[in-house]
Amino acid sequence: MKIKLSFFGKTSEVTEREKELLKRISFRCPAEMQAMPQAGVRRGGCKTMEAEKLLSKLDSSDFLVALDEKGQEMTSVEFSKKLKRWLTEHGTVHFVVGGAYGLSESVLKRANVTLSFGRMTWTRELARLMLCEQVYRAGEIEGGSNFHK
Amino acid sequence: MKIKLSFFGKTSEVTEREKELLKRISFRCPAEMQAMPQAGVRRGGCKTMEAEKLLSKLDSSDFLVALDEKGQEMTSVEFSKKLKRWLTEHGTVHFVVGGAYGLSESVLKRANVTLSFGRMTWTRELARLMLCEQVYRAGEIEGGSNFHK
Repeated sequence: MKIKLSFFGKTSEVTEREKELLKRISFRCPAEMQAMPQAGVRRGGCKTMEAEKLLSKLDSSDFLVALDEKGQEMTSVEFSKKLKRWLTEHGTVHFVVGGAYGLSESVLKRANVTLSFGRMTWTRELARLMLCEQVYRAGEIEGGSNFHK
Repeated sequence: MKIKLSFFGKTSEVTEREKELLKRISFRCPAEMQAMPQAGVRRGGCKTMEAEKLLSKLDSSDFLVALDEKGQEMTSVEFSKKLKRWLTEHGTVHFVVGGAYGLSESVLKRANVTLSFGRMTWTRELARLMLCEQVYRAGEIEGGSNFHK
């Protein structure tokens, strides 16, 4: 079982707090965050190029979860249960946070689930941190620790 | 017009990123973040003591917005419009993020609005950063900048 978190940007953008959360997540399930090069072209082309890069890295059996404002909302407990099932059934769960212009249709189409962090809009930097924290929380809920009260 | 953001903890907990956002918010509207001492007592008493401290700092005309999982959800654009109206009508808008055990009933009762960041549970440290970012975004939306696309 493995958790992968992909974003478009530079490896150097991974913050100390994210590294700390990834380390903690890895106590329960191997987890890594991977930066994918941002396409330096105009709006339409940018999303398409980024999509190609991402999709070429996925195995056909990978379960892809795309962060998207229009996606499903769930509670942390619901998310925890689903994440466990996805990991058990698919082995690798791959989360992706869009680049400056969001995710292309081809990624949203390939995604097994689109996940929303509520109705508000978040910067992609903050969405990444929110994702790390939710994945960590999901593991703690599943593991029965007292992190989630 | 003034925006106040209160949380229970130490002033030293205010992060660089939060300070940066507060500075940017202040270009449009004076904003400050204030740490209120955490009550070091057991669960029930803790919330009551913290509530007393918070309520004693409020003017009767202050518009109080309490962060609460069961609160209202809104989009960033809706929040921006409402924040503008609250500031215009009340002068001071005071946001509060609960302590380790959440907010007491007396604070929720005094609150003019309870606001939710979606169905998931967030740590109070992250909720604080999310709040700073939404308040900043609200100002940018209102001011017509291109931060919110």
